[in-house]
Amino acid sequence: MAITEIPGGHGWAVPLAVGDAVRLVNTFGSQVVDTWALARHDTSEYLSVEHTRRMIANLFPGQGDIFYSNRRSKMLSLEKDTAPGRHDMLFACCDKWLYQHYGCAPGHRTCRDNFLQALFAAGFDANFVPNPVNLWMNIPVSADGHVGIEPPVSRPGDEVVLRALMDVLVVFSACPMDVTPINGPDRTPRPVYAEVLVQAAS
Amino acid sequence: MAITEIPGGHGWAVPLAVGDAVRLVNTFGSQVVDTWALARHDTSEYLSVEHTRRMIANLFPGQGDIFYSNRRSKMLSLEKDTAPGRHDMLFACCDKWLYQHYGCAPGHRTCRDNFLQALFAAGFDANFVPNPVNLWMNIPVSADGHVGIEPPVSRPGDEVVLRALMDVLVVFSACPMDVTPINGPDRTPRPVYAEVLVQAAS
Repeated sequence: MAITEIPGGHGWAVPLAVGDAVRLVNTFGSQVVDTWALARHDTSEYLSVEHTRRMIANLFPGQGDIFYSNRRSKMLSLEKDTAPGRHDMLFACCDKWLYQHYGCAPGHRTCRDNFLQALFAAGFDANFVPNPVNLWMNIPVSADGHVGIEPPVSRPGDEVVLRALMDVLVVFSACPMDVTPINGPDRTPRPVYAEVLVQAAS
Repeated sequence: MAITEIPGGHGWAVPLAVGDAVRLVNTFGSQVVDTWALARHDTSEYLSVEHTRRMIANLFPGQGDIFYSNRRSKMLSLEKDTAPGRHDMLFACCDKWLYQHYGCAPGHRTCRDNFLQALFAAGFDANFVPNPVNLWMNIPVSADGHVGIEPPVSRPGDEVVLRALMDVLVVFSACPMDVTPINGPDRTPRPVYAEVLVQAAS
């Protein structure tokens, strides 16, 4: 299937049937991608990081781990993960209130708006914005619980493969953050690309 | 104001005007209390642990910390906290799907149902259940990100005071969990009590 480039700072939604997967490549290595999944039959069922943490007993998802829904159903598996670092499940996506907090002018792109726009463009709706999985986002946790904000340690070409364990809509946002170094020390959002891997007919 | 006893396994909602506070006492020391707050003018604004973690730069709230909403507004302050341990902001509340996972019969009480019932009884509605602050819940985090499930280290009479920084509805659920030792090694939900502290007129 065709490759889709997601421009830096923009979002994209892709429906997956159970068994299909999406491969997401960090072209330049430094781009954080906020990632959501919602059940296509009922978007009030969504990938829940607070349920996933409980079910995998870890703050950080790793290769082979499963992402659970808010009904504790298996939603996606992290089938492949080539990056040396971690992915974050602790921080809310960036939103207009965060950019206000940083003193930015109104109208700054946000992952929250990207989520909603991509969802609506795909024909779905939502009453609220779940806490995303922030792929490649480097949020180190200290023994006293302090959480840092660091540039990614991922490398150009690092990739993840997310396999659908139910019919889902996956939404990506190549995070537009340009205030903190979360997308690299040069604070520049960059494109990533995605490829849908359709399950071979058996 | 009168003291309200919340029976073990049950919920209670209390409206607070800005400046008012609620004092919650862990009568027997071993009871986890799942805690939510919603803006009274618009319950789509709610206490968000994923925003709070980002704003206080810590996994665990401590005395003096502020709980932020999903619009990054100051919602509640943890004005007093006498317990030696931590409070959890990592785990979803217990729900029917967790008790199914543990093999319990249908109809087990849950914090999720307690939240919804208390909210409805107070005349409010909600489209979804936010991740709560789990007062006194002991979820230790290891250097590798592993999260444990341990009995509380709080003591009989330990208390918190939550001060409203906007007009809010606070919802408590004295967690009905009796499968894991999260409410103490004897796995027995017990009552707690709450007292509203109305701000003195100036």
